[in-house]
Amino acid sequence: MELTAGMVTVRDLAYSHDGCEMRGLFHVPHGASNLPGVLVVHGAHGLGDFIRASSERLAREGYAVLAVDMWGGRKLLTDPALIGPQLGAFVQDRGMWMGRLAAAQAALATQPETDAARIGAIGYCFGGASVLEMLRTGAALAGVVSLHGGLDVVGDDWAGAQPGEALICTGADDPLASPTDLARITAGMGRAALDWQADVYGGTLHGFTEPDAPGRPPFARYNARADRRSWAATVGFLAEVLC
Amino acid sequence: MELTAGMVTVRDLAYSHDGCEMRGLFHVPHGASNLPGVLVVHGAHGLGDFIRASSERLAREGYAVLAVDMWGGRKLLTDPALIGPQLGAFVQDRGMWMGRLAAAQAALATQPETDAARIGAIGYCFGGASVLEMLRTGAALAGVVSLHGGLDVVGDDWAGAQPGEALICTGADDPLASPTDLARITAGMGRAALDWQADVYGGTLHGFTEPDAPGRPPFARYNARADRRSWAATVGFLAEVLC
Repeated sequence: MELTAGMVTVRDLAYSHDGCEMRGLFHVPHGASNLPGVLVVHGAHGLGDFIRASSERLAREGYAVLAVDMWGGRKLLTDPALIGPQLGAFVQDRGMWMGRLAAAQAALATQPETDAARIGAIGYCFGGASVLEMLRTGAALAGVVSLHGGLDVVGDDWAGAQPGEALICTGADDPLASPTDLARITAGMGRAALDWQADVYGGTLHGFTEPDAPGRPPFARYNARADRRSWAATVGFLAEVLC
Repeated sequence: MELTAGMVTVRDLAYSHDGCEMRGLFHVPHGASNLPGVLVVHGAHGLGDFIRASSERLAREGYAVLAVDMWGGRKLLTDPALIGPQLGAFVQDRGMWMGRLAAAQAALATQPETDAARIGAIGYCFGGASVLEMLRTGAALAGVVSLHGGLDVVGDDWAGAQPGEALICTGADDPLASPTDLARITAGMGRAALDWQADVYGGTLHGFTEPDAPGRPPFARYNARADRRSWAATVGFLAEVLC
């Protein structure tokens, strides 16, 4: 499948890891080449419309963008009862977690439109934790952005990190991103001499960029101000570290 | 004195409080009117070249800008030994501190180019603490930005604040802005239902926007990344709350 919507070309991008077949969506400005690449890592719900829209917006900014498919087969998790076990499986098996992301990064880097020397990553919720974990465990990424990432599942030992920067955009009232976890992670980055910035939004819960929908937990709420500001910060950060 | 430099008109603006004669510098795009106003509050050194340049840049963004003169007579503090006593005098006499700023705000609001209904404030170091104190104690300001403000001298009781927003840009390693002070202030703003955002820059000391110079204390250091990012955040914030 290859569709050209406006100025952005969108095509399926299949890759695999350890027997899991994943089907990401690659977005790139039509006719462009030699672009910095950005992975977009979804939250609990999978590669749905929200992630497609975010990836298309980033492509319009001049990036080769791969919306990754963490669950495989482009599965969407619509039953809230399945979310905890699904995320737990990845947190318990970090080899699987990072392995799938490494496969996505390799797939992005080898697209003809991508400049493999300039790759960054952004992620939402579980995806925010994912991109921080990639940076922490040694992925070659110029910069990563965590948008309401679940900071509680990010590890402590940053000694294996390669040079790279992080931007952490987080709600002050997000129970998955306590001040203690934020301080723990930034201390780790500091020990590893990684540059970091944390933008904390007052009066803001988890999941602030994503539209509210039935079944949303009470600790997640859309916040237009934090959505707008975190997107501006993300675009500015990516331009700085990748362009 | 009235000078037109490029597209920005600059003129002296005299005002007074309790017997102190102050001489601010008003900056406005040439020929403009009905502009939102911004106070620029200097740090320990007074209304010098750094503050003039910052004010002119803001005027070019489309604001009526008053660089305030907190010390009176446009005095510059060049002797580091005088800084502590000077700042201490203001922290001890908050009536003088806020009174001089209120006089500056009134002077800005009554300029013919200013829309008095839309006033904000930014400040550096002592000026960052100053604009937070204005907001805390009830000044009518749509938004304030503290750039490496001395958060240790900002009070706790926000019950008298009017609606308004704050952006706090601070270095993670600034001893005048500890995480404890930041948490204390943002908690106060939260209790008063004020919107706030805190941008914390890793590996960054106090005074990160200002050029290094002889006599600078060891806890202050220029940081290009934090300078660039805090300016972008400031411009975005002011446009959001004032335009």
